[in-house]
Amino acid sequence: MRVEFLLDVLKPHQPDSYIVAQELMKIEGVNKVRVRVDELDQKTASLHIKVQGYDLSLDDISEGLAKLNCALHSVDEVICEEGGAIEE
Amino acid sequence: MRVEFLLDVLKPHQPDSYIVAQELMKIEGVNKVRVRVDELDQKTASLHIKVQGYDLSLDDISEGLAKLNCALHSVDEVICEEGGAIEE
Amino acid sequence: MRVEFLLDVLKPHQPDSYIVAQELMKIEGVNKVRVRVDELDQKTASLHIKVQGYDLSLDDISEGLAKLNCALHSVDEVICEEGGAIEE
Amino acid sequence: MRVEFLLDVLKPHQPDSYIVAQELMKIEGVNKVRVRVDELDQKTASLHIKVQGYDLSLDDISEGLAKLNCALHSVDEVICEEGGAIEE
Amino acid sequence: MRVEFLLDVLKPHQPDSYIVAQELMKIEGVNKVRVRVDELDQKTASLHIKVQGYDLSLDDISEGLAKLNCALHSVDEVICEEGGAIEE
Amino acid sequence: MRVEFLLDVLKPHQPDSYIVAQELMKIEGVNKVRVRVDELDQKTASLHIKVQGYDLSLDDISEGLAKLNCALHSVDEVICEEGGAIEE
Amino acid sequence: MRVEFLLDVLKPHQPDSYIVAQELMKIEGVNKVRVRVDELDQKTASLHIKVQGYDLSLDDISEGLAKLNCALHSVDEVICEEGGAIEE
Repeated sequence: MRVEFLLDVLKPHQPDSYIVAQELMKIEGVNKVRVRVDELDQKTASLHIKVQGYDLSLDDISEGLAKLNCALHSVDEVICEEGGAIEE
Repeated sequence: MRVEFLLDVLKPHQPDSYIVAQELMKIEGVNKVRVRVDELDQKTASLHIKVQGYDLSLDDISEGLAKLNCALHSVDEVICEEGGAIEE
Repeated sequence: MRVEFLLDVLKPHQPDSYIVAQELMKIEGVNKVRVRVDELDQKTASLHIKVQGYDLSLDDISEGLAKLNCALHSVDEVICEEGGAIEE
Repeated sequence: MRVEFLLDVLKPHQPDSYIVAQELMKIEGVNKVRVRVDELDQKTASLHIKVQGYDLSLDDISEGLAKLNCALHSVDEVICEEGGAIEE
Repeated sequence: MRVEFLLDVLKPHQPDSYIVAQELMKIEGVNKVRVRVDELDQKTASLHIKVQGYDLSLDDISEGLAKLNCALHSVDEVICEEGGAIEE
Repeated sequence: MRVEFLLDVLKPHQPDSYIVAQELMKIEGVNKVRVRVDELDQKTASLHIKVQGYDLSLDDISEGLAKLNCALHSVDEVICEEGGAIEE
Repeated sequence: MRVEFLLDVLKPHQPDSYIVAQELMKIEGVNKVRVRVDELDQKTASLHIKVQGYDLSLDDISEGLAKLNCALHSVDEVICEEGGAIEE
């Protein structure tokens, strides 16, 4: 099943967004990540992260973010669609 | 017959949107679900849910949502189109 | 001749929009119906209905709506185009 | 030569827009008509009519409209393009 | 060389826009003309005319307009692109 | 290397925009030019010029504009992309 | 892995944007660069730079910009996607 999440995430200034994107790409099933900086505060950055892939686990993503000291605030959108990685 | 619904749904904080999407995907004929969080209140979330598939039953969807403690408020749009799952 | 109507329709709360769409799909020549709820009043819903098909009869559609206790208020747009169901 | 007109037309309440569209489709060279209701007054409707086809005569269209008690107010846009009905 | 002009033109009420478009189509190299009425005054109409074709002469177009009692006010846009009529 | 410039240019009333476009097309590597008039003053016109091509020299373009009594004010956008004229 | 960065960069008036774009194109993995001038101040220009390519290093880009006396202020967006240069 193809899955797409739009996530609202809080990130400290370190690690940078590219490291966050690269770490999310390592999670099973993930094949595309877009990290967009929404707001920059003194110590944190508020991010809109889109994660696309197949048969994704929201727990894996949440844990992956936690390891990077990022907090998953909310899931703003979920798309599920029939079809496996092979059909693509 | 290809069918598409745009639904206005009220959801308690638990289960999360991904579980709602996954459960709706199990309903007969459904092949795509998009759950978008419209508004977050203290105890509930207001959702815009798009459900796509073939020969869908609105009762099945309404019951599926009820089992997840979600209430189907209104059907904002319905699209029906000739064609079966095979033609796609 | 391919025909497309955009209709302004008044509907009581029952039957629901899906039943309206399904009944319109049974009319000769109709191959796609989109029912969008424009406004919800206490006893009625104002609908924008798009009906697509071939060699459609506006009388058939108006009668079909009347049987469902719906009133055809106005025809907001009509598209006619050469071509039969076979060319599609 | 492919031709497209965007016309501003005044119509009494009868005949309805579908009859106007069907009559315009009978004019030589016309292969697509879109009638959009712009404004509804007590006795008349103001229409935006798009007529597409090949080697169209504006006089034929104006006369066709007059027979339906419609008045051609203005031609808002004209597109001419090389190419005959066969190339399409 | 493919060429496209966007012209600002002043036209008396006669000839009508369709005659202007048809006359411009007769100019060497022109293969598409779009005449859009921008503003209607008591004695004149302000037009936005797009002329497309190959190896066009702006003098030919300006003279063609003058013969129709139209005045070329300004050239708002010019596009030039490698390629001849044959490649299209 | 495919290159695209968006240039801000000041032009006296003579030469006209079409001559500017035609002269820019003669510069080595240029295959498309769009000249858009942004503002007309008493003695000058402010232009937005897009120049597309392969392995372009900004000096050639600046000199070409100077010969036409046009002044290159600023480069608002540059796009570079791998690929030669042959791949296109 | 396909990578795309949207960068916020501060540039002195020299070197010009084309040189910045050309130098970024020389960095390993980069195949497309877009430099857009956001704001011009007396001594500096604020740029939005999009860099696309495969397996990019943000350090290489930051160093490349530093050599041109440009400062990488922030990374506004990162896109990572499975796939190598060969699949494209």
